[in-house]
Amino acid sequence: MSPWALRQLDTIETPSLVVDQNRLDRNIERMESRAKDLGVALRPHLKTGKSIELAERIPSFHTTGGTVSTMQEATAFGDQTEKTLLYARTPTASALSAIGMSQQTDFRLNRVLVAVDSIEHFEGVPPLAPGYQGRFRVLIEIDSGEHRSGLQPDDPDLPRLVRELTDKPDIRLEGVFTHGGHSYEAKSIDTVRAIAEQERQAIVAAAEIFAEAGVDCPIRSVGSTPTVTHATHYDGCTEVRAGVFVFQDLFQVGMGNCDRDDLALSVATRVIGRRARDHRLLIDAGGIALSKDRSTRAFANPDHQAAGDVGDCGYGLVCNAEGELLEGLQVVEAWQEHGVVEARPGFELDIEDFPIGTMLRILPNHACMTAAAHEAYNVLMPNGQIRARWKRENGW
Amino acid sequence: MSPWALRQLDTIETPSLVVDQNRLDRNIERMESRAKDLGVALRPHLKTGKSIELAERIPSFHTTGGTVSTMQEATAFGDQTEKTLLYARTPTASALSAIGMSQQTDFRLNRVLVAVDSIEHFEGVPPLAPGYQGRFRVLIEIDSGEHRSGLQPDDPDLPRLVRELTDKPDIRLEGVFTHGGHSYEAKSIDTVRAIAEQERQAIVAAAEIFAEAGVDCPIRSVGSTPTVTHATHYDGCTEVRAGVFVFQDLFQVGMGNCDRDDLALSVATRVIGRRARDHRLLIDAGGIALSKDRSTRAFANPDHQAAGDVGDCGYGLVCNAEGELLEGLQVVEAWQEHGVVEARPGFELDIEDFPIGTMLRILPNHACMTAAAHEAYNVLMPNGQIRARWKRENGW
Repeated sequence: MSPWALRQLDTIETPSLVVDQNRLDRNIERMESRAKDLGVALRPHLKTGKSIELAERIPSFHTTGGTVSTMQEATAFGDQTEKTLLYARTPTASALSAIGMSQQTDFRLNRVLVAVDSIEHFEGVPPLAPGYQGRFRVLIEIDSGEHRSGLQPDDPDLPRLVRELTDKPDIRLEGVFTHGGHSYEAKSIDTVRAIAEQERQAIVAAAEIFAEAGVDCPIRSVGSTPTVTHATHYDGCTEVRAGVFVFQDLFQVGMGNCDRDDLALSVATRVIGRRARDHRLLIDAGGIALSKDRSTRAFANPDHQAAGDVGDCGYGLVCNAEGELLEGLQVVEAWQEHGVVEARPGFELDIEDFPIGTMLRILPNHACMTAAAHEAYNVLMPNGQIRARWKRENGW
Repeated sequence: MSPWALRQLDTIETPSLVVDQNRLDRNIERMESRAKDLGVALRPHLKTGKSIELAERIPSFHTTGGTVSTMQEATAFGDQTEKTLLYARTPTASALSAIGMSQQTDFRLNRVLVAVDSIEHFEGVPPLAPGYQGRFRVLIEIDSGEHRSGLQPDDPDLPRLVRELTDKPDIRLEGVFTHGGHSYEAKSIDTVRAIAEQERQAIVAAAEIFAEAGVDCPIRSVGSTPTVTHATHYDGCTEVRAGVFVFQDLFQVGMGNCDRDDLALSVATRVIGRRARDHRLLIDAGGIALSKDRSTRAFANPDHQAAGDVGDCGYGLVCNAEGELLEGLQVVEAWQEHGVVEARPGFELDIEDFPIGTMLRILPNHACMTAAAHEAYNVLMPNGQIRARWKRENGW
């Protein structure tokens, strides 16, 4: 690879991801400070950025560790922190086997905490070698109301699972975690706050089960970007997890978790066609570059007390190359490699303002999904220069 | 990379793409035969597969060439056929500059046909060197009713553009193309057939404009998988383009363009959790592995005379590892790395049938979008063996 040279934003190929470094750093600082105020550690979820350079800008990545969603992330980030990585999805036997094997050989996955909600996950997994001192480091996933995975704290299977895991000689049970992902369905900040309290109560109740069984529960992990942003307190928990806060996105604006000026991720695109008759622009960012995520559709529901008042943003809102929002424009259609920009109701689009070749930057509905098909980020400085290209750890 | 060894399907990592080679070959054969019956050439759109090995299985790729949607595809496929590649999206100046540069140096992009609907696309593009014999090979995009891009055949700008392009010394104008993409919105096969006729008439009318200007129009290209499947005839056209036909997908089934047994692409996934209370399975394929495409939602509209009667398939239908459809199951939710399988109304899901670790294969709504985040295909033989891994040409 040729050495990286500084370049101007307007020279990059499109479509491609642009990260505003100042906004990124500010978002990180704000979440670090939020965790401090809550009196808990922050274990950032690295699935949003999937980038080593980005993770290294998060102070808690070095002091607490991180959260990952794929074995690819676990492997890539494994060497980058002295602390633990929580693989926060119930694992396949293949993932557990890889973790067990790595612990005894190259150590890259040595500090991975795995999350299970059944002893069944260990079926077919080769035991660690007799005499080997390491252990599978395990958390139990607790369901605090999302009903995606995990055991509810009053589930009779929970005390049994605590016993089964502590009985297995090659497992060290280290605590519990929950994800109040149903906060994404909440229609008001009060509901988000109530879900944060559900997370907390579920973890405290689960830790009680550990105590009754005489088992330590040092890790008590909760969170999602919405709940961590709005929780009243997390007493009884030791750490919070959040991911999308690094970039924020239109969905987070709509929920009232951040402001438009916090959005650190955009997709750089260029105008590749103009239709005067239809008052629309064709751009070179489509469903792959933007994703088909339509989560902001929820804000069209009149019941939604969207604090950020962005409404349904189609496939994204539109900024000029400088990152200034072009009020009233949005991406209304996204085919595989074509997108269409039109005016929102009550606004007008004059195509004369946008010659073919004009660069635009699209703010995404859901940053994690939009970034997924891109291999790297262009890191933008306030002076309009791209100072680095950060690779993403895609795949599984 | 270690040499590829045959392996059993049940040993592959999940989530990952599986291509049923027999079905793929059958789909290719059927489309080749369809084009022959229509008396036109087939120029396969390679954006669906994005794989050199897959393209090489399509006879027309060698005799006609291909269609591409990104410069990455143009570059990757450029060396693989002696024939032309149609870059079927209006280009940026950067793409045109790369094509011009490549023609004069490494020749990889030498046989790329570019499509424009305005002379504006050539602004800022360095001219080819004086004395250089090659030309930018150009088609004009015609709008046959989709209103995405292209000029309508009766647009007064069309004769002017023909003149402007023929006047430029480093351009060779070679014809016209249109894409009846609005066929994807059609609610009946009769409408699809009418849109195929719109494509044909638009091309014939545009070719008339060429004739009036005394300009040859050797390439007259039409198509989309739906319109090519159902067109009555394409008299006056020289070639058809289609892409998704290689894999087909649930949307194509619902439109009546193929049968369920034609679906050649699936996402292999494993059960990673079970909730008896909710009668649901958690799988390790989520929004990145399946995409957030919800195109089959259209079939929930009672006006839709869906010939394939699959209905709204959520994020995909569910097969066992052998590829047999598990009637009545579908993916109802897709977070970044988690999916949920539930029974469709009127059916039941007994989670006892699906221990943790069970492999399933998900049939996608829209194959092009589902494949997008995967780096390769596992190529499945009828004996259950994976015989090869085909790399995808992702990115831009």
